[in-house]
Amino acid sequence: MWNDLLPIGRDAGSHGYRRYAWTGADADCREWFKAQATTRGLAYEVDRNGNQWAWLGDPAAGDAVVTGSHLDSVPDGGAFDGPLGVVSSLAALDELRARGAEFTRPLAITNFGDEEGARFGLACVGSRLTAGQLTAAKARELRDADGITLAHAMERAGYDPEAIGADPERLARIGAFVELHVEQGRALDISGDPVGVASAIWPHGRWRFDFRGEANHAGTTRLEDRRDPMLTYADTVLAAREQARLAGALATFGKVAVEPNGVNAIPSLVRGWLDSRAADEATLARVVAGVERAARDSGERSGIGVDVTRESFTPVVEFEHGLRDRLAGLLADDDGRPAPVLPTGAGHDAGILSAAIPTAMLFVRNPTGISHSPAEAADEDDCLAGVTALADVLEGLACR
Amino acid sequence: MWNDLLPIGRDAGSHGYRRYAWTGADADCREWFKAQATTRGLAYEVDRNGNQWAWLGDPAAGDAVVTGSHLDSVPDGGAFDGPLGVVSSLAALDELRARGAEFTRPLAITNFGDEEGARFGLACVGSRLTAGQLTAAKARELRDADGITLAHAMERAGYDPEAIGADPERLARIGAFVELHVEQGRALDISGDPVGVASAIWPHGRWRFDFRGEANHAGTTRLEDRRDPMLTYADTVLAAREQARLAGALATFGKVAVEPNGVNAIPSLVRGWLDSRAADEATLARVVAGVERAARDSGERSGIGVDVTRESFTPVVEFEHGLRDRLAGLLADDDGRPAPVLPTGAGHDAGILSAAIPTAMLFVRNPTGISHSPAEAADEDDCLAGVTALADVLEGLACR
Repeated sequence: MWNDLLPIGRDAGSHGYRRYAWTGADADCREWFKAQATTRGLAYEVDRNGNQWAWLGDPAAGDAVVTGSHLDSVPDGGAFDGPLGVVSSLAALDELRARGAEFTRPLAITNFGDEEGARFGLACVGSRLTAGQLTAAKARELRDADGITLAHAMERAGYDPEAIGADPERLARIGAFVELHVEQGRALDISGDPVGVASAIWPHGRWRFDFRGEANHAGTTRLEDRRDPMLTYADTVLAAREQARLAGALATFGKVAVEPNGVNAIPSLVRGWLDSRAADEATLARVVAGVERAARDSGERSGIGVDVTRESFTPVVEFEHGLRDRLAGLLADDDGRPAPVLPTGAGHDAGILSAAIPTAMLFVRNPTGISHSPAEAADEDDCLAGVTALADVLEGLACR
Repeated sequence: MWNDLLPIGRDAGSHGYRRYAWTGADADCREWFKAQATTRGLAYEVDRNGNQWAWLGDPAAGDAVVTGSHLDSVPDGGAFDGPLGVVSSLAALDELRARGAEFTRPLAITNFGDEEGARFGLACVGSRLTAGQLTAAKARELRDADGITLAHAMERAGYDPEAIGADPERLARIGAFVELHVEQGRALDISGDPVGVASAIWPHGRWRFDFRGEANHAGTTRLEDRRDPMLTYADTVLAAREQARLAGALATFGKVAVEPNGVNAIPSLVRGWLDSRAADEATLARVVAGVERAARDSGERSGIGVDVTRESFTPVVEFEHGLRDRLAGLLADDDGRPAPVLPTGAGHDAGILSAAIPTAMLFVRNPTGISHSPAEAADEDDCLAGVTALADVLEGLACR
């Protein structure tokens, strides 16, 4: 099962994955999911927002236990972020059947569409639409780097963009959602546990910084006549790291766009995107305000205009304590010590759905902590421990 | 004449010019040149490297006086950089004819191909090929951002890439080359002169800095576990400015490329291009060594690999003193004070040709000093003074 999925959307040069929503690689992943569902005799369906579902039992019965994740990737992403959750869900079902488990609640396995937002710039589009956290009109107008709208991309992939939107009826059928995911940090590696339970997702957001100077010839303009926004950008990159360090938070400039971006041209515009996250919203606000102040101070000294736009913001997500504690108990070791409970800085479909339904997450140890990179890793033993843990959880929630 | 040229290749959004070598806009400019030559009864030809020539008198007679510049542009360039020299050459010929000048030497007006190097990354390709400073094999393999080779681009534009290469026979016919150009700094504005004569072109070059870190998730990777090359890049940008300031030189990072360039991804690679220039080669070497040292020091502190590649280098160009002094004398004011003589930091076809033939340049005042930008400017009176000066120079060199 895992081996069939591995080659899809893998770049021969970087060895990273480029599975962007509604592209050919994405379609291949979705075909793979459908085949896995059919092979297991599960009832396959695609919802109005393009999320895939594989049902065991009657969806209409209600109080379903749902598990799954996503198959799309960031640019040059790793093999595990997303796919590990979908593959583990299918493997956990196989294990439960091998155990002869009798299901008392409907079970569904999902593949949420467009989780990473790599193509259209907004993460978790499939779950946001379903949960009513993104309007259909706004979603349809999202554009990729080539100017293609999400509506057009969905249509070309064979889906109906007019049908997308909030799906409260579907949500009402779900009693619990559990997402298994490779850990994207080193907490489990440091604590020495193969599997953990999520406590919360840190509040996080994206801010676009536009630094506006004056295009000019790099070979003839005196330093004192320049208004070079690259210098202000550099000051701001360093300030972001310092603010994050002081606050025990995270702040990153990972994306930049320059105009005209010529070797011998002083830029007219440098645009940098700040990703920042912290344990609580007050700390996050303080970090971002500090970066913005540093940018404006630097800009004022050298005649650079600074505009800051908040492009997205996700408040703190506290996963439901009852479900979280139940999972930690179900995964207790032989001495009755519950599984470790840890926060994460990364957004997930589980975070979106947690506003509407009881939701939990399991993390599988990542020995390097590396994520969103071809170097992302998980040991086979830990992956198998994750499958067993997910099977235990599903058995505890959905079986007699 | 000027008004026919103005709309070609102008971007409606930026109001800057995008006349890149061997594109449709370039072809339109070249058609314009051919029409101007034909209208004046000049013998029109294209040489093996795609440079355009318009001859008055017998090319084979030798000792020709040649004037001209280029019509291509940087991304979002101004209206004057290049075209002012070509238009002024044609206007100067018109003025000499109106004066009833009798030519004793052949005269040619040129439009050199691909001067800016905006598309294929190397400046002055047309003159470099002709002067034997670039081999045909290397030129053919130059690639644009879409991976199209120069050979393929020339072929599509209707030229024969197999014919390109050194053209010593053509060079041997030229007795002197004079290029008029808008000034790309503020020296004439500060001195209060409409027209000046070039003394030298500063040595200059391009260095590519590759900063290699480790791609990772911006939302989950602890600051202490990161190897973020954006921070090293930022340190290096600031160090370049400081080194240039201390040395009285120029150093600019105007172009950057990031991988994977995702908002929530710590980059694996940041690639920045340094453009640096100084009055002499020792100073330039000192500046670049200082920037490289700062980059390596910063990289060592945070586990970032730094590779520096010199992509191009042009030694200092001292224009021939005899021709330079003759021009300054021809342009003396009524009190016999010679025209001002000034250096420039920008490369030109005249700089390339000066290695093979006596070459000189005239600069026309630029009131803002801005260049390589839509804000580039020259007053009409100064442009007319430039035409008169060029006519005086050509009359002095080529007429009885």
